[in-house]
Amino acid sequence: MRKLPRVAITTGDPAGVGPELCLRLLDSPRVRAVCVPVVVGDAGVLRRVARHLGWHEPRPVIGPDEAAAAEGPCVVDLKSLEAAAVEPGRVSAACGRAAYDAVVFAIDEVLTGTFDALATGPLNKEALHLAGVPFPGHTEILAHRTGASRACMMLTSEAITCSLVTAHVGLREVADLLSRELVRETIELTADAMRRLRGREPRLVVCGLNPHAGEHGLFGRGEEERLIAPAVADARAAGIDVTGPLPPDTAFLPKYRAATDAYVCMYHDQGLIPLKALAFEQAVNVTLGLPLVRTSVDHGTAFDIAWRGVADVSSFVRAVELAATLCRD
Amino acid sequence: MRKLPRVAITTGDPAGVGPELCLRLLDSPRVRAVCVPVVVGDAGVLRRVARHLGWHEPRPVIGPDEAAAAEGPCVVDLKSLEAAAVEPGRVSAACGRAAYDAVVFAIDEVLTGTFDALATGPLNKEALHLAGVPFPGHTEILAHRTGASRACMMLTSEAITCSLVTAHVGLREVADLLSRELVRETIELTADAMRRLRGREPRLVVCGLNPHAGEHGLFGRGEEERLIAPAVADARAAGIDVTGPLPPDTAFLPKYRAATDAYVCMYHDQGLIPLKALAFEQAVNVTLGLPLVRTSVDHGTAFDIAWRGVADVSSFVRAVELAATLCRD
Repeated sequence: MRKLPRVAITTGDPAGVGPELCLRLLDSPRVRAVCVPVVVGDAGVLRRVARHLGWHEPRPVIGPDEAAAAEGPCVVDLKSLEAAAVEPGRVSAACGRAAYDAVVFAIDEVLTGTFDALATGPLNKEALHLAGVPFPGHTEILAHRTGASRACMMLTSEAITCSLVTAHVGLREVADLLSRELVRETIELTADAMRRLRGREPRLVVCGLNPHAGEHGLFGRGEEERLIAPAVADARAAGIDVTGPLPPDTAFLPKYRAATDAYVCMYHDQGLIPLKALAFEQAVNVTLGLPLVRTSVDHGTAFDIAWRGVADVSSFVRAVELAATLCRD
Repeated sequence: MRKLPRVAITTGDPAGVGPELCLRLLDSPRVRAVCVPVVVGDAGVLRRVARHLGWHEPRPVIGPDEAAAAEGPCVVDLKSLEAAAVEPGRVSAACGRAAYDAVVFAIDEVLTGTFDALATGPLNKEALHLAGVPFPGHTEILAHRTGASRACMMLTSEAITCSLVTAHVGLREVADLLSRELVRETIELTADAMRRLRGREPRLVVCGLNPHAGEHGLFGRGEEERLIAPAVADARAAGIDVTGPLPPDTAFLPKYRAATDAYVCMYHDQGLIPLKALAFEQAVNVTLGLPLVRTSVDHGTAFDIAWRGVADVSSFVRAVELAATLCRD
């Protein structure tokens, strides 16, 4: 029998909904069917949340040194903060630090082969900042810690999958950040990920940058002809089934969606507007271009409902399932 | 009994699907229930198309001088080209010129009060160019002919309505074209149109420009704080029910759509991507900010199926219905 992949799951900010979601993941039949879930965080916080909600406490709990020997679902306790001092829904430096330390530990252990993939719970940007962490979020932490030259964000759902050539930058900066290499690289990363997801050669669509894909240079400065079309040609020459650049507004019509495994989008909202409009809270975030498999929930810390046991675990379940799927050979 | 509004309907390019759609509109019970449809174009072409398809010929046909006296559905014959020479699906200067002349005639007759509103059939950009018409499409013809300082594009459907602060410009130009005044004006024009459409005070949402609406200045150059938020505050002070700027990717989530009559979008694809993804071919195009009511089909000349009687008239029917609704007091 083939061994299940071991997926490191970070709780995210201890004051958010991450701990209760991780408790659910450990018990989830869907999760346990596809991987060995290993929750990385503070066991004291997990126990406190479990008691608070009347749930059973997580076990076994092991130390960081024992992680490599873990055979089944478990918690790796980093003992990173005083659990009794955590207030649900409250931003704090201690929680920011603990969340950061867990992500760093998990990245390192995936890189060394202790775990096969990483699925991350939601961080709080302000808490990271208070803790003196010099990164605003996971993507930057991952790029720095793994030494990756770039990280590419892809969101995937039943209805639609989009990867982003540029992401968290101002709209006015997008055009100048595009290059033939960057577009081609994003197409290649997307094709590789979708090949593993679909188990066959995927069909990709690349969107233009400008209205009507520039209408032959009428809008914009010929980015479609100068950068995007050559990148598509490069990718086709490398054997990838990809078309474009298509006019962005018609690219997402139902008839085209039905024939498309993934869209390569030039900027954040070009991909995330249709993705969220069509898949709303069903998408999972994957980071491509790293030397490890990493997925993430698509929601935040939800401090307003933290530790109440009402948070929806389905996005996190899908993130873990996807991590397990992506680390198949 | 209240008099029905008289809607001038241009056939668009004679070699496209416009003439056969106009023949259907004249007979449409849905159209005749809400307005007096007056088709403006070349009667010879309409007769030829009708005979070709085995449909009855349109009547009555009147001259341009008689337009003011028309009481019921009719065709105003501009005798603008030799009907026998028109080849369906073929781009020609003669067709471009005839289509342009019909639009200009109809605009002038709406401005002088002969008609109450204008619904336009699809033009062919290349034919206009061959005819020496110095405008690429309706929007520019309308702005020039009516002397309007600006025209604002709004697309409306059952599922979603979006108006655009900027439209047919390169993505890199969008940020510099935004101003507090332009955003406020677009909010006001949208509120006015939606008030007439809904018969009540509409609820509007304004999208930010950057990812996450700039995330407090992190992405972009504070366009949300400097321009968009003040414009929203201005509109609220003027009594408009409007919120924003919202993060563009979450603004179109189903739960927000349900509570929103119209979205004010900063650029073409911010509005048209979700609109086409959700309403596909059900939307009608309205031009706001003109001294006349003007709507348009949301498809092109469809030369590949011209004069075959298979073109779908539903978008044009909705455009005429909308024109009739918008010219109510």
